[in-house]
Formats: sequence, C-alpha cells, structure tokens
Amino acid sequence: MTASVGIVGASGYGGAELLRLLAGHPDLDVAVVAAHSQAGEPVASLFPNLPGDRVFDAVVPEQLAELDLVFLSTPHGVSLALGALLHDAGVRTVDLSGAFRLTAADFATWYGESHPRPDLTPAAYGLPEFNRKQIADATLVANPGCYVTTALLGLVPLAGLLMPDTIVVDGKSGTSGAGRAAKDALHATHVAASLTAYGAPGHRHTGEIEAHLAGFGADLGPISFTPHLLPIPRGLLTTSYASLAAGVTAEDVQSALVDAFAEEPFVHVLTPGTFPAVKAVAGSNACQLSAVVDPRTGRVTVVSVTDNLGKGAAGQAVQNANLLLGLPETTGLSTIGLYP
Amino acid sequence: MTASVGIVGASGYGGAELLRLLAGHPDLDVAVVAAHSQAGEPVASLFPNLPGDRVFDAVVPEQLAELDLVFLSTPHGVSLALGALLHDAGVRTVDLSGAFRLTAADFATWYGESHPRPDLTPAAYGLPEFNRKQIADATLVANPGCYVTTALLGLVPLAGLLMPDTIVVDGKSGTSGAGRAAKDALHATHVAASLTAYGAPGHRHTGEIEAHLAGFGADLGPISFTPHLLPIPRGLLTTSYASLAAGVTAEDVQSALVDAFAEEPFVHVLTPGTFPAVKAVAGSNACQLSAVVDPRTGRVTVVSVTDNLGKGAAGQAVQNANLLLGLPETTGLSTIGLYP
Amino acid sequence: MTASVGIVGASGYGGAELLRLLAGHPDLDVAVVAAHSQAGEPVASLFPNLPGDRVFDAVVPEQLAELDLVFLSTPHGVSLALGALLHDAGVRTVDLSGAFRLTAADFATWYGESHPRPDLTPAAYGLPEFNRKQIADATLVANPGCYVTTALLGLVPLAGLLMPDTIVVDGKSGTSGAGRAAKDALHATHVAASLTAYGAPGHRHTGEIEAHLAGFGADLGPISFTPHLLPIPRGLLTTSYASLAAGVTAEDVQSALVDAFAEEPFVHVLTPGTFPAVKAVAGSNACQLSAVVDPRTGRVTVVSVTDNLGKGAAGQAVQNANLLLGLPETTGLSTIGLYP
Amino acid sequence: MTASVGIVGASGYGGAELLRLLAGHPDLDVAVVAAHSQAGEPVASLFPNLPGDRVFDAVVPEQLAELDLVFLSTPHGVSLALGALLHDAGVRTVDLSGAFRLTAADFATWYGESHPRPDLTPAAYGLPEFNRKQIADATLVANPGCYVTTALLGLVPLAGLLMPDTIVVDGKSGTSGAGRAAKDALHATHVAASLTAYGAPGHRHTGEIEAHLAGFGADLGPISFTPHLLPIPRGLLTTSYASLAAGVTAEDVQSALVDAFAEEPFVHVLTPGTFPAVKAVAGSNACQLSAVVDPRTGRVTVVSVTDNLGKGAAGQAVQNANLLLGLPETTGLSTIGLYP
Repeated sequence: MTASVGIVGASGYGGAELLRLLAGHPDLDVAVVAAHSQAGEPVASLFPNLPGDRVFDAVVPEQLAELDLVFLSTPHGVSLALGALLHDAGVRTVDLSGAFRLTAADFATWYGESHPRPDLTPAAYGLPEFNRKQIADATLVANPGCYVTTALLGLVPLAGLLMPDTIVVDGKSGTSGAGRAAKDALHATHVAASLTAYGAPGHRHTGEIEAHLAGFGADLGPISFTPHLLPIPRGLLTTSYASLAAGVTAEDVQSALVDAFAEEPFVHVLTPGTFPAVKAVAGSNACQLSAVVDPRTGRVTVVSVTDNLGKGAAGQAVQNANLLLGLPETTGLSTIGLYP
Repeated sequence: MTASVGIVGASGYGGAELLRLLAGHPDLDVAVVAAHSQAGEPVASLFPNLPGDRVFDAVVPEQLAELDLVFLSTPHGVSLALGALLHDAGVRTVDLSGAFRLTAADFATWYGESHPRPDLTPAAYGLPEFNRKQIADATLVANPGCYVTTALLGLVPLAGLLMPDTIVVDGKSGTSGAGRAAKDALHATHVAASLTAYGAPGHRHTGEIEAHLAGFGADLGPISFTPHLLPIPRGLLTTSYASLAAGVTAEDVQSALVDAFAEEPFVHVLTPGTFPAVKAVAGSNACQLSAVVDPRTGRVTVVSVTDNLGKGAAGQAVQNANLLLGLPETTGLSTIGLYP
Repeated sequence: MTASVGIVGASGYGGAELLRLLAGHPDLDVAVVAAHSQAGEPVASLFPNLPGDRVFDAVVPEQLAELDLVFLSTPHGVSLALGALLHDAGVRTVDLSGAFRLTAADFATWYGESHPRPDLTPAAYGLPEFNRKQIADATLVANPGCYVTTALLGLVPLAGLLMPDTIVVDGKSGTSGAGRAAKDALHATHVAASLTAYGAPGHRHTGEIEAHLAGFGADLGPISFTPHLLPIPRGLLTTSYASLAAGVTAEDVQSALVDAFAEEPFVHVLTPGTFPAVKAVAGSNACQLSAVVDPRTGRVTVVSVTDNLGKGAAGQAVQNANLLLGLPETTGLSTIGLYP
Repeated sequence: MTASVGIVGASGYGGAELLRLLAGHPDLDVAVVAAHSQAGEPVASLFPNLPGDRVFDAVVPEQLAELDLVFLSTPHGVSLALGALLHDAGVRTVDLSGAFRLTAADFATWYGESHPRPDLTPAAYGLPEFNRKQIADATLVANPGCYVTTALLGLVPLAGLLMPDTIVVDGKSGTSGAGRAAKDALHATHVAASLTAYGAPGHRHTGEIEAHLAGFGADLGPISFTPHLLPIPRGLLTTSYASLAAGVTAEDVQSALVDAFAEEPFVHVLTPGTFPAVKAVAGSNACQLSAVVDPRTGRVTVVSVTDNLGKGAAGQAVQNANLLLGLPETTGLSTIGLYP
C-alpha cells in the first residue's frame, strides 16, 4: 500500500533532494509539494533535474493534516508551528530543521529564543543507527543536523573509550548546506577556488553534537566545533579528535566501530589508514568513516563523510519515514555514491 | 528471469559507472567484473563508492562466452578482438569503444589502422532514440561516443531543415571522458580553475558525428568539431551551429525537436531561450536540449547536455542491453540528475 | 610624476581588479575609490585580498573632475552620465561599460535605449593592439567587452582571409564576468560542477564583435555568438570558427597572426595544434591564442584566452590609461598568469 | 647590483612559482633554470604561463657553485647532496625541501633515514617573522613546510598562553602541495567535487611543527595533525585548536597576535569572528589569520591561510633570499592575493 506524503519547504535544497529521492521510492506518493513563496511556479524552474509540469503547491495546513506523513524542510521558525500542528493532529512528521532536536533549555541557549512547545522536546532524534526503536514509535521525528549526523556516527560508538573535555570536531561542508538563498558569501565567484571557516565557536550544531553525544551515552563535555565552507556543491567531512581513556588501544577503537556498524546498511567502516572521500557517498544515504590512533599523543582521529543532503538531510529523512511507516529501512535509498 | 552479464575493462570510468548502475538493475546479475591489469585487486580500492570485498576478475574469453551479455569498456584495440570473438560465439555484446562504430573505410581514416573484421562494421549503432529496432535485433552493438550522442540528439531531428556544409559543433566535457590513466594534462592542479581546447580538428568523434548524421538521414557534409576539457568530473555539453535551409522558421525547428522526442523517456526538449545545465543530468541517462534561431544570421544553435558517463557511455550501454535482452528500455535507469 | 586617478564603481569586480593592479603601478596614485552604495564601508569587507583601513568614497562628480584620469567601472547607465560629464570637463576617462563602445544607432539596437550623447559615440575603442594611436589622442576611451577583446584579437588579423557570413564565436567565461550581485544563477551551489549556455542569440557582445570587426577592417557580416558560464571565478576562452576565402592556406593564417603580434607584449601566438589554457593568463594582461585549419571543411578555428578581469577588463583599462597618460604601455601590468 | 641566482628542480610547482616571482624581481637575475629530467625541454611546455624560448638547463654542480644564490626546489634526497655541496662551497642556498629543517635525530625519526650531514642540521629555519637575524647571517636556509609556516604563524605568538599537550592542527591544502607527478589520487576526476584526509597521523609536517614550536619558545608537546586535500589548485588553511592556560582571556590572545605582527608586512591579523579566505592570499606572500576563544571549552581556535606555493614555499623562499642578500625583505613580493 502506498503512503501519501507531503513536502513542505520543497523549494529549498533539502526539499529538492526529497523530491529526487521520492521519485524513486516505490511506496511513497508525493501528494503535496509545498513552497510558501514559490507556490504556482514550476518545480523545474528551480530544479532543472526535475523537468515536467509539476508546480509548487501552497502551504495549506488542513491539507497536510490529511496525509500519512509530512516532511518539513522549512526554517526552524516555520517548523515550530507546523510541527506542533501536525503532531497534535497525529500526523507522522519528519522535521529537517533544528526546531525539535534539543531540550527546551538547550534550544533557548543555542537558538536564542524560548521554545513554544517544550512538551514536544526533544522529539525522537532521527539517527536510526542509534535510535531505531524510538523513531519507529514516534509521531514527530527531529532529523539531525548534517554536521551532527556525520560526527556522531564516528564518535558515539567510542563512548567509554574517550576522555571527556578533549573533543574537537573540525567540519567541512559543501555549499548546499548553507541553503538556497543568494548571498554574497555564497556567490560562485567568491566560493570557487577558496575555503574559509565560519560560525565558530557558536554554531548551533555544536550544542546538538554535545546534547546527543550525551543522549547516546557519551557525555563528553563541551566540544570545540569549527565548520568550513568547501568549494563543492554537496558533501560533508568531519575530522574529530579526542584523547583516549587510559589503556585504550587502536584495536579497541577499531573493534568498537566495526561492531557498531556490522549490521548497518548505510555505514561503512574503512581500514585504519584509509581515509574516506566525500565524493564516494555523493547522492547516497551512506556514511563512510575510519579512525587512526596516534600513540604519541594518545588521541584518536575519526574522519567521517556523508552527503550533507543525503545521510545529512533528505536521505536520512527518508530512512526515518520508512521507520515511521513500517517499511524496510533501506527502501528507496542508495548506498552507492556518484563517483567519480 | 535474471540475465548473467559481464563487464570487461571494469577498472575504467565507464566500467565503474556500469557497476554503479547495475547494482540497482533488477534483471541483470553481474557475474564477471574483469580488468586485465587490476585482476585480484579490490574494486573498492579504485572506486570507493563501491565498498565491499569484490575483486576484479581476470579476462577469460571462454568464461565471457558463456554469459548472456557482455559490456566491453575496453580500449578499441582490445574491443576489436573481444568483440569479434563474442560475436562469433553469439554472445550479445555492447561495446563502448570506437571499434565498431564506423565502416571499415571510415575506421581506417579516423583510427589510422585497418579494421580486422570489416564484416562486422558498422555494428548496430547504439543510439536507441533513432535506431531502436536494429539494436534489438543485433548481437553486437556499438555504443556511441559521448560527444556524438549529445550532438546527434540535437541535430538528427533537424535533418532536412539544415544547409549542408555549415555545421559547427563546439563540445565541452568533464575530465572523466578522458579516461582514468594519470597524465600531466589531467592532473588536478592543471585542470582546476582552467579550460582548454584539445584534439581539433582531427578528433575521432568528428568522423563519427558525420557518419551517423548521414546514417540517420542528415548527410550534412564535413563538420567542424572542437572539444574542450572542463574542470568538472562528469558532464558534457555540445553547442551546435547550422545554417537553416531557405524558409525554415524557429517554429519548424522547435516542432521537429518536440515531435522527435515526445515519446522518449530520456530526452527533454526545453523552451527556446532556456538553456540546459550539465548538472541537471549528472548521474542520469537523460539528455536535455534546447534550440534558438537567430533571424539575423539564419542559423540555429542547439545546446545539448548529457552525463558523459551516463547517456554518453554506461547509461546508454544499459539502455542498449535492455533492448538486446527484451527488457523495458528504462529498467535500472534514471531520468533525474543529481542536482544541485 | 605621479598621476592622480579615481575609480568609480570600485565595489564591483572590475573595480576590485583595478585596485589590485594599481596597488603595484608606480605612476598612478589612486586618490578616489568611489562606490555609490558602499560609501563608507571598508574595502576589505568586500575584497579580503585588500586588507587595510581604506573605505569606499562617495561618488562626487566635482571631485572626479579634478583628477588626471578616471576609471568608470559602473553600469552603462551610470557611465552614460559620468562619462559625458568627465568628457566635457576634459578629464581623461576609461569607461569599462558598454556606454560608448558602439555608434548611437548600434547602441539603440543592442541596448534598447537611445543614446543621450551621440556626439561622443563611438568613443576611442580601447583595444591598443589595433587602435593605439587613437587611444593616445583621446579623452574618452571605451574599454572593450571581455568576450569581444578575446575574439577580436584572434579574428582581426585574419581580415581578408575569411569569408563573410560564416563566423561563429563560442564563448566561455568565469563567473566574475557576470558581476558581483548575488543571483540564483550565480549561487555557488548551482554553478559548481556544472556548465550552461546563456544569453544567445541576443547577447550585447554579439553586436560589439560585429561592429569592431568591421571597424578594424574585417566586415564579416552578422555573427553567431553563444556565451557559456564556466564553474571558475575568472578566465575566458573563445573558440571562433570561420570559412577561409578561396586559396587561403594554414600558413597564411599562422603568418597573419604571428605578424600581427610579433611586437606586442601582451599577445602570444602559440604553435598550431597547441591550445591555450585559461589559467595560463589568470591575473595577467596577457592573451594567448592559436589557430588550426581543417582542409576538410575549409575552416579555421581560433582559440583565444584572456583573464576576463585582466585583458578582458581592468588590465586593458590600465593599458589604456598608460596610453592616455603617455606612460610606457606595459607599466604596472604582467604578462605571466598565476599558474597552476 | 643584480645577483645571479639559480633554481634547481625548476620543473616542479615550487620551481615554477619561483620563476613566476623572479620574473618580477628587480634585483635577481635567474641565470640557471635546472631540471634534471626535463633538461632541454622548453619551460613553456610545462608551464604555459611562461611563454618564450627558455629551456630547462641540466643540473651542473660546478655551475651552481659560481652563483650568488641557489634555490633548491628538489626532493629532500637531492637537496641533502646539493645543499651540502653548495654550503661547503660557500654559496648562499635556500632549500625548499625537508632536508635541513630538523635536527639529525628528528630527521631520522620523521624521514626514516639517517642524516648524512648532521653538522648542517638544523639549518637556519627560514621563517623570517620569527628568525630574521639568523637567516640573514646564514649560508644555508631551510625553507619551512607549507602547513608548518601556516600553523606556526598562528601559534608561536601564543607561546606561554597555551597548555601543552592540547594542540590539534587540522590542515587543508590545494593539490599543488602534493607535487607535479601524475598519480591516481591527484587525477582531476578524483579530486574534483571531493575532499579527503591523508597521511595522518605520521605526516612529516607534524614533527616539523612540534620542533619549531619548541624552537620558537612554545614547547607544547606532541601535536595531532591531519592534512586534507582540497579540490583547488593552490591555497592552504590550518585550523589550530589549543587549551588556554589558566586565566588567559580572549583579549590576551588577540593582543599577542596583533603585537607579534604589527610591523610585519606579510601577516594580517583579522578581527575575531572574521575568518580568512584562502583565495584572499592566492599568488601572494601574505598570511591572514584570526583567532576566536570559546569560554565554554577554554580553547582558542586559530584559523590561518597562505598560498601553499607563496608564503608556503616559493614566496617565502624569495623573502629568505632577500634577507640572505641584504635586500629589502619585501622586494619582488606581493601582499595582495588574486581575488576573486
């Protein structure tokens, strides 16, 4: 049986990637493609990979409330309102924004505003590899941030092996992670052949990494996180550094990672000394990662890659939707990136 | 029923793309992944998007001769031998090289060597949009060159509307079109942030465009063709110029294109004045094209894009394999590019 | 003696490149750095390669009128007014816009508006290699368009060798050619790893190429011109095609090019079969070009590269300023690109 | 008076950049352009930005010994021999390799071979901002590694403010840093639109950073260093993390940086919260850097950019040559990057 789904905020990159992925999903029918300010415009005028006559729909809450599932690919302010509305209507919802990822207290700290619906926070955190059960039972799922997903997949399995207060996460993302709005800093002429850091030390994903490291059993204290803007359209890499607890060996680290993901279809642990390439997962829902231990410093370095629009956003949202709807988790998702 | 297929030359980019596409093809089972010089090496060591334990096989002709279908993604010298061998053994074969695309006489002209098996030339030319029937009935299919596919899709429908001896094709290709061998000219440091022309006026695709324009009813005389190397990994765009025959209008041109592809799943004709973007078809088997007519010069300009590894190589090879095996032509192929 | 110069429109890319070049010019002192909407903002906030405390000045015509020379790097509408004002005040001016490049009649055709000062049109056309004398004697110089400079350098020397009505110019430019304003089509996420055509067949540089081919003795009729947007920040390549007049040989073509530029410091003619790379001239005022003749078609193909901000804009403007001020033409300019 | 200099290893990228820079240097005459395996080939065939008839010379030690100064842009094995020979002949030499940067003991550790001339180690370390005097008095100067220069400029001024054993340096470099040899990992098709880590934790620059942090008064213990390969031709960024000693404030950090570089022409300290862009220093000898302090973690993050071929290699080598020859340190060098 086919489920009827809607995408709100479909004119953004997350929405576009959802449209691309759902076009190949056998069990989900995209009934609504809503985009507030582009309502009535052809989808193809924004996303030329999706030729055809479909136009963006208006955002009509009553209409959304009748669907089997809604993806909210909207700014967190919009998600706060729509997510609550859909939750109260009992509609399964995957929210790709930061609206419901944190406790109300943490939300206030990192977003600088008080949460209007603390009762819904934190929603089921949509990282299936660590939280499959809670997601399947939820109504509202908070899809994780792109940097957060990528870093957590490499760090959570090492909980217990790491020394608190030593975590540094250095992130690098393609430009689609910064959204579709035309800004000076995202002008092709500025970005091309360059690289820059941004947003440190107060980037919101910092708090999200900390909160969910703790939530998944790795309370490692405050972390340092610096994101960088890569001159590529999609792809994300995190390089995470941590001091090992006394006596922990390189073999312990590798075993922890291999064991954590042995049965996971979307996470590939590489041999130590082999490093993952961002392009290997482009367009897929895969994460590739590897770790090296340096006995000189007693630190482990974990390098992890995802497609920021794939496992970092829309791909993971589909994975969560599959769980919410009782479908096989891999339906409609690829593990093979577009390489080269 | 699943057909058992082999890929020879699987360590090249065409082979890698075949592996990627066939991983998602429901009716083809890849029994052999042969690569002469990499036999025994893990596929993942060359193509990290394909993690796993599979290793490249040796090239064993007897083994290939027992398969239902073979893709030859080999240099034309190798294809000349293996293509003939497989043909004689009655094995359906899609050859991605230039070995069998031309008559023996044209082959001698453009490749500077005499053809060892003139009786097999030209093989069924694997451009399904114009040659579906002959392909389905063939044993040996010559998969077209990447520039050739892209240019012909825009020019063949205009046969009869154009003046001979006025055709100019300006081609631009991503670097994967130049193969996987490490060369100075393909060093990332040289290619990045640059653009250069190469190979004009004697590039082999020149003769192939001419031959198959004529073969598909558009004998337009010798053409000028200049390829350029783009600083991107995949994607191809041709800009074709031709003088219109007397009395031909912009409407005639647009109608010819729209009519030619109205029922074609992989070719999208855009509105005049809208130009296709290479990235809109990345990773797909689609071609997007549009034409503008300039009354001042009496010329039409057709701009056409494909993924050089998709519709320009491996994607089209799968389309041809589907035809050869009696499967629905679109099986395992996408029309939606990885955008952005 | 140092000349006192001003830059108006200094917040655009042409202005920024003028600032960069003039920082190394021994004889020009930049007294005014005017930018209407950024007046008061630090230059470094827009152009981080120019750290320091300088802020953009307001545009004050009376102040400009006291300078030795003014560069107008403004939209053509602004240049129409300021160029006329400065001309009337007797101030030497190099205008980088299209305001004064064409006759008033051609301006009306290509810009869709009537020219307010036909008496000033066309101004001295600032292509020194063909027009050195007129520039040196002028007050107002119209700096050529980037595509136009690049194409004309390859075609003008061939006047007399080419058949009219056969010219096709296929242009490819880096994104800085499209200006600094943030637009959807210039978003890094859309541009990266892609290529598209735009603006054909009515791009204004079409008329400018035609007019100045004729002006420099090569009245070759209407041409076809298609520009393309490259995923690189700067650099421009034109591939020009033309049928040769009866009896013209490859040697004739090469001699014409070599002879034309034997004494020119900024134009390098390469051996036929060697093609210039855009990056070889990045940041310089150089043009590199080469031509191949195809006896099969009777056509010559000329491939020519410049930096669209260098010889295609600011570099050439400095070259013109040197001429206007009686300085050695190469002062402050480089012939060596930033390669690799 | 003009000094007569030679470049050995001129066919590599460091050599090419020296050629480019020295073409604009008023006081150095490049008498020898030696490249072992390319001797006799035109320079322009490798580096098209340098058109002309000059060919690479053979490496003739006796000839080098008569020059005023030699740049060795050779692999460390070649530099070990030539550097010693030139030193013994009393010829001022700037060696761009790792041959003489470390003590013989450290060299053995990081390069896995014993040093043939421990008496020459470590040579004067060519980081003028911290070592101007020793360089001016030396015969043999060891030009620092690209990552090392970039990281040290940000960390050395903070000596005394940082806690030992907490230093993490995350480096990102353009592909020219990996040399000109064509390799699979440097193929444009693999590099484009991707990013990967490499060489951790044993990259040789790790030991060099540690040794010279200590040498310049910041003995901070073993560090973690992970380099990454950016899909750009040139440019380097390091993100360095360290815990602050007790009581150190953000103001202390900023003052230390500003004070260290107040009189330095090539180092620009940006306002905290503003991050430097790699492209802002492209082609120049500049370094731009900024630091932010996070009170939550007690860490400082220093982001620093250079052109890996400029301040990271050839530019700094020219700066050192100026010092060795008693010329003004900035002669022939730019502080303004090619932006955009």
